[in-house]
Amino acid sequence: MSSLFHHIAIAGIGLIGGSLARDIKRLKLAGRITGYGRNPARMQHACSMGLIDDWHVGFESGLQDADLVVVGTPVCSIAQVVQAMAPYCSPDALVTDVGSVKEPVVKAVASALPDKICFIGGHPIAGRENSGFESSRDGLFENRICVLTPDETTDPERLAKLTCFWEALGARVVIMNARVHDKIFGAISHLPHVVAFSLVNALVDTPEFDRTILRYSAGGFRDFTRIAASDAVMWRDIVIANRDNVLHWITVFQQSLAELTRAIASNDADSVERLFKKSRDARRELS
Amino acid sequence: MSSLFHHIAIAGIGLIGGSLARDIKRLKLAGRITGYGRNPARMQHACSMGLIDDWHVGFESGLQDADLVVVGTPVCSIAQVVQAMAPYCSPDALVTDVGSVKEPVVKAVASALPDKICFIGGHPIAGRENSGFESSRDGLFENRICVLTPDETTDPERLAKLTCFWEALGARVVIMNARVHDKIFGAISHLPHVVAFSLVNALVDTPEFDRTILRYSAGGFRDFTRIAASDAVMWRDIVIANRDNVLHWITVFQQSLAELTRAIASNDADSVERLFKKSRDARRELS
Repeated sequence: MSSLFHHIAIAGIGLIGGSLARDIKRLKLAGRITGYGRNPARMQHACSMGLIDDWHVGFESGLQDADLVVVGTPVCSIAQVVQAMAPYCSPDALVTDVGSVKEPVVKAVASALPDKICFIGGHPIAGRENSGFESSRDGLFENRICVLTPDETTDPERLAKLTCFWEALGARVVIMNARVHDKIFGAISHLPHVVAFSLVNALVDTPEFDRTILRYSAGGFRDFTRIAASDAVMWRDIVIANRDNVLHWITVFQQSLAELTRAIASNDADSVERLFKKSRDARRELS
Repeated sequence: MSSLFHHIAIAGIGLIGGSLARDIKRLKLAGRITGYGRNPARMQHACSMGLIDDWHVGFESGLQDADLVVVGTPVCSIAQVVQAMAPYCSPDALVTDVGSVKEPVVKAVASALPDKICFIGGHPIAGRENSGFESSRDGLFENRICVLTPDETTDPERLAKLTCFWEALGARVVIMNARVHDKIFGAISHLPHVVAFSLVNALVDTPEFDRTILRYSAGGFRDFTRIAASDAVMWRDIVIANRDNVLHWITVFQQSLAELTRAIASNDADSVERLFKKSRDARRELS
């Protein structure tokens, strides 16, 4: 059986790029993987671990025969990286990314790319608190959603091939409009992170708060600190890139918190119970 | 070896009361366990499961020779239950509770109890999303903190005996002032629950929000829904009983969220990163 792709280039060998490389090797989805990254020592390390077959710092080498290019760099740099790669890419190359914000990326790429290059935005929902290829692992995408955000100009055959690729990695592909994606993930992913970061900061900042007490925390706070331990630079880029949606959802959340706060402040036990029950019911729908 | 107590009475056979009963049996910490509860069918069920040896609805029966009385009823009813039990308790009885809020309970009990009864507030940090004795299990308290809140009138020998009891259950006992307890748990437990309930409600309430999309949620929102699936009535009682502390911590959190929101709104990437990094560092101290 021939592999899905001949040669895959991955720019940015972090948690996602590294885990992709592992599975591409393990599942024989490509004949060769070339890595791109700015830090030669780290790229050499990834190469010696067997994640990638070779690596370059600059895009002028090794890209010409890659039939799939995956950009795994931070959200704010994806469009620039795609643009920098484009002159060296094969006209047949399929270019995609794995960023957590889609509309600004897809827009910036569309306005900057030569027509010949096909770019389809992607977002595998497989982040973890850890980052870097040292945290990469086999099967990271198994049973996870991967959102793809084609637009009306996307070649259906290329979309089908990219879908096959993610499905081969064990992911469930969901096709979504980039704008809808950013609204939804602003709500279910970016807002919870903003809230968790804020809650942890609120407590550690309080002078009256004895930090040793944090160790007593069972559920509740400990869950928040786990979310708030996510990579600060990555999340900075995500909330800035998806700023309008994030601000919208913060406002919606603030109103919800204010409603509950009013009920508590006025000793309105019935309203407190009603608001708490609503959350439980939502959880039931989820499971 | 004689057991630690002769006869233990447990009022309220829920998750905590039921798990206590299991471990008291398993570890042979008492010769007999009597359960008290308002619902005869449920009490009979707990009895037929072997959690308790016998049960009563009213306190006039079976209490007179109990040397340990544990009140496992909802926070808002603990003081009333202790008061209702007192006339039937032995003068030597040690009475304790397992409620999540301590100062109002300890105060109400102190003002209502005859001097002869010794009450020491307790709070095992072992809650789970599920409630009811059907969710009870062996070893629930192993390696968990149990806070005890004696005051200046507490007999040291009784405190030592209660400490032995919780340590025999595998818990690590922490002695704490009731007021300090409520401030701390308002921050690390009650606030996170209020925030999680509010966040889940914020999203499910939004008409533009497609609930099917919740299934796409990996980390982030899913963690919040787990916390927000906690028992609504129990949490209603907790936040109402600890209202002043909860309202204080909500304000502190709102200020922290407002600071981060300002940084995002003004595209101030440096401040966003600084705020996110602070949370990460706090997490590191925790692990």
